[in-house]
Amino acid sequence: MKTPIILVNYKIYNEISGSRGLELAKICQEVSKKTGVNIAIAPQMIDLFYIAEKISIPVFSQHVDNIKPGSGTGKTTLEGIRATKAVGTLINHSENRLKIADIENIVTKCKELGLISVVCTNNLAVSKAVAMFNPDFIAVEPPELIGGDISVTDADPDIVKNTVKVIRDISPKTKVLCGAGVKNGKDIKKAIELGAEGVLLASGVTKAKNPREVLEDLAKGAI
Amino acid sequence: MKTPIILVNYKIYNEISGSRGLELAKICQEVSKKTGVNIAIAPQMIDLFYIAEKISIPVFSQHVDNIKPGSGTGKTTLEGIRATKAVGTLINHSENRLKIADIENIVTKCKELGLISVVCTNNLAVSKAVAMFNPDFIAVEPPELIGGDISVTDADPDIVKNTVKVIRDISPKTKVLCGAGVKNGKDIKKAIELGAEGVLLASGVTKAKNPREVLEDLAKGAI
Amino acid sequence: MKTPIILVNYKIYNEISGSRGLELAKICQEVSKKTGVNIAIAPQMIDLFYIAEKISIPVFSQHVDNIKPGSGTGKTTLEGIRATKAVGTLINHSENRLKIADIENIVTKCKELGLISVVCTNNLAVSKAVAMFNPDFIAVEPPELIGGDISVTDADPDIVKNTVKVIRDISPKTKVLCGAGVKNGKDIKKAIELGAEGVLLASGVTKAKNPREVLEDLAKGAI
Amino acid sequence: MKTPIILVNYKIYNEISGSRGLELAKICQEVSKKTGVNIAIAPQMIDLFYIAEKISIPVFSQHVDNIKPGSGTGKTTLEGIRATKAVGTLINHSENRLKIADIENIVTKCKELGLISVVCTNNLAVSKAVAMFNPDFIAVEPPELIGGDISVTDADPDIVKNTVKVIRDISPKTKVLCGAGVKNGKDIKKAIELGAEGVLLASGVTKAKNPREVLEDLAKGAI
Repeated sequence: MKTPIILVNYKIYNEISGSRGLELAKICQEVSKKTGVNIAIAPQMIDLFYIAEKISIPVFSQHVDNIKPGSGTGKTTLEGIRATKAVGTLINHSENRLKIADIENIVTKCKELGLISVVCTNNLAVSKAVAMFNPDFIAVEPPELIGGDISVTDADPDIVKNTVKVIRDISPKTKVLCGAGVKNGKDIKKAIELGAEGVLLASGVTKAKNPREVLEDLAKGAI
Repeated sequence: MKTPIILVNYKIYNEISGSRGLELAKICQEVSKKTGVNIAIAPQMIDLFYIAEKISIPVFSQHVDNIKPGSGTGKTTLEGIRATKAVGTLINHSENRLKIADIENIVTKCKELGLISVVCTNNLAVSKAVAMFNPDFIAVEPPELIGGDISVTDADPDIVKNTVKVIRDISPKTKVLCGAGVKNGKDIKKAIELGAEGVLLASGVTKAKNPREVLEDLAKGAI
Repeated sequence: MKTPIILVNYKIYNEISGSRGLELAKICQEVSKKTGVNIAIAPQMIDLFYIAEKISIPVFSQHVDNIKPGSGTGKTTLEGIRATKAVGTLINHSENRLKIADIENIVTKCKELGLISVVCTNNLAVSKAVAMFNPDFIAVEPPELIGGDISVTDADPDIVKNTVKVIRDISPKTKVLCGAGVKNGKDIKKAIELGAEGVLLASGVTKAKNPREVLEDLAKGAI
Repeated sequence: MKTPIILVNYKIYNEISGSRGLELAKICQEVSKKTGVNIAIAPQMIDLFYIAEKISIPVFSQHVDNIKPGSGTGKTTLEGIRATKAVGTLINHSENRLKIADIENIVTKCKELGLISVVCTNNLAVSKAVAMFNPDFIAVEPPELIGGDISVTDADPDIVKNTVKVIRDISPKTKVLCGAGVKNGKDIKKAIELGAEGVLLASGVTKAKNPREVLEDLAKGAI
């Protein structure tokens, strides 16, 4: 996965449901092509395959259950995600926290299946713990800043810098993203200066009046 | 929703992930057209929109969360389901049980949004309780028979007959489906004789060597 | 269980942990004896047996899991509750909602074990559903009023009156309590006028500067 | 906390509910005094304070929620546990797994409150992750061996040896316990030879015909 990366989490906003989710995906794809910056998306669960089959930028699942194919009505497996052509999955997002044994098992299975694991964490200690599983990405997001107006890169630059530093020691191949309040090119530029290899963001793009402009500004900051 | 109905729950079997889920959906559609029997499907969550946009038989979500559009990474809203053109959702499946206040709220919201609610229950008492919410369908499935070899219509015909009877008194517009072990035309014929307006089944179709044959046999039983 | 009843839910407030929980229990007992009004308590889970063995007014568990004795580290069984001499349990409190099949199973098992079931509900529809299980008590508490300053008896008297009315038709032996914002004798008097047989309250007593005074006022309202 | 330690998890077996739980606690205490080996217990949640006030050997909670004192009917706080005179708590038992952020927060808060944290883990990778939080104890229990007849020390001695080794590097002050299938003095002797500082066990004691004999045999193995 080429970095720096801008990973857009659609969450379950009205603004991205149905055909609007696909429209936003196409805008992400166009801006990515135009700027050369890697932009990835995590659409609503029920739109995953619908969108993944129609675009060529990387698509992630927002969530996965630690469950094998079989029974499990309403659940989602890594095998199912892979079959949609999605490239990986968010794991343990603050809105969908997982048990530690489940995170470990999912990250391990991602490696077997060739899927990219992006484990979300809330602080330095949890990032260090998760680093023991050697995921592809750790996305650190202080919960108190999620959905807020101040970017983590301004509100708590140390958490980004320190996460990058300690993860490098524990799991050198794991890349660090940061998130929470990230909204523009300035924020992502700062994130990269702090050592992150990209950002995870949501409302800054999905609820923007003009998502294309926001994405172009973000991409500019990432170059 | 025309009845009798054969509602095929895909669960998360390997046999229905990726493009194979769409193939099975097309077979269901063909058998439905050929026989005139209403066949509906509940695909994997992540395949919902992908499949729903490509076929014309009724598509249901396997699950929904009692959550509003907005934050909620990895969750599923009724609004999101409606935007995929799915016609409704399973609620409270035995593999994804819900809290009672959530069931009530989801059923109420289904009515507002014009979605069909299919609430799964495990016994007569719970069916009676759920009937108070006036869902479109109650699908009674004794948990000990789910995934087994003996159809609920043979193993416990009384639960079907009694559920039909008591639901008629409490909520006359609610239709009763039955499930657990249902596998062939004989089973669905018996279900209809017992007063049910259809069946909910999974492995009998999804894991069949020849799903078309199984579906045609089921449809024959439903006529 | 004699009614009207004042059922004091200790929740997990600092004010009632350790020996202070027992002190409050003794005050409840003294006021009950003095006034002749039935006052019951639901202490912290970990204090249940400690308090139950030392007082003679009715003690309830705050919660129970739908699980059999055996494995289940950290869980609570009805059999375990009964062995502490507690007389029953709250079920499905708004801070600890249960799945519908679990509520049904717990209420049924309460009858077998001779324990008193107090099922909490959030609105009229859920109360009607729960009435199908014929619990001993239904305690209706509109969630938006819990912990607030305005008593449900003032903010939404109709929900109390209507719950009493519909429950009487469905399950004549089930008694109705109301809760949320209940704080003084005036509130409980109103509750009884609306047809309730008592109140469920928490912070109004547990966080009171002088719990004895509050309890005496409540008891006065209940006479 | 003196080691080696024999930590008896009561779970929710019928054999330890009510007064029988106290009886077993007294036997543990007598054997501990007689042999000089540290024996600790984790009683049923609802019996915690009842037992803790009556005995002097260390008492642990079986579980704790990551929640502050206040609202939270049916939950358990560290503050509440401390007020019962219990010395600490099991965290993340295989029958009550926690989210990773909750484990981190609970372990951190245990240190602030002077409580002993015993975090249960299922394999080497999860043990390493948890070691990042520097708990007082890590109790590794391969889930497939829990409740079985073969002790982890025979079935998988390497997991014990390797856990001890890696934890020593990551968090030198964290002590390792092992569990699953542990039943007699021979098992605990082997555990100590493998580097563990004690065992966590349940049915081997709680369901024994003669718990005193079993405990004496265990204590002998620990000397």
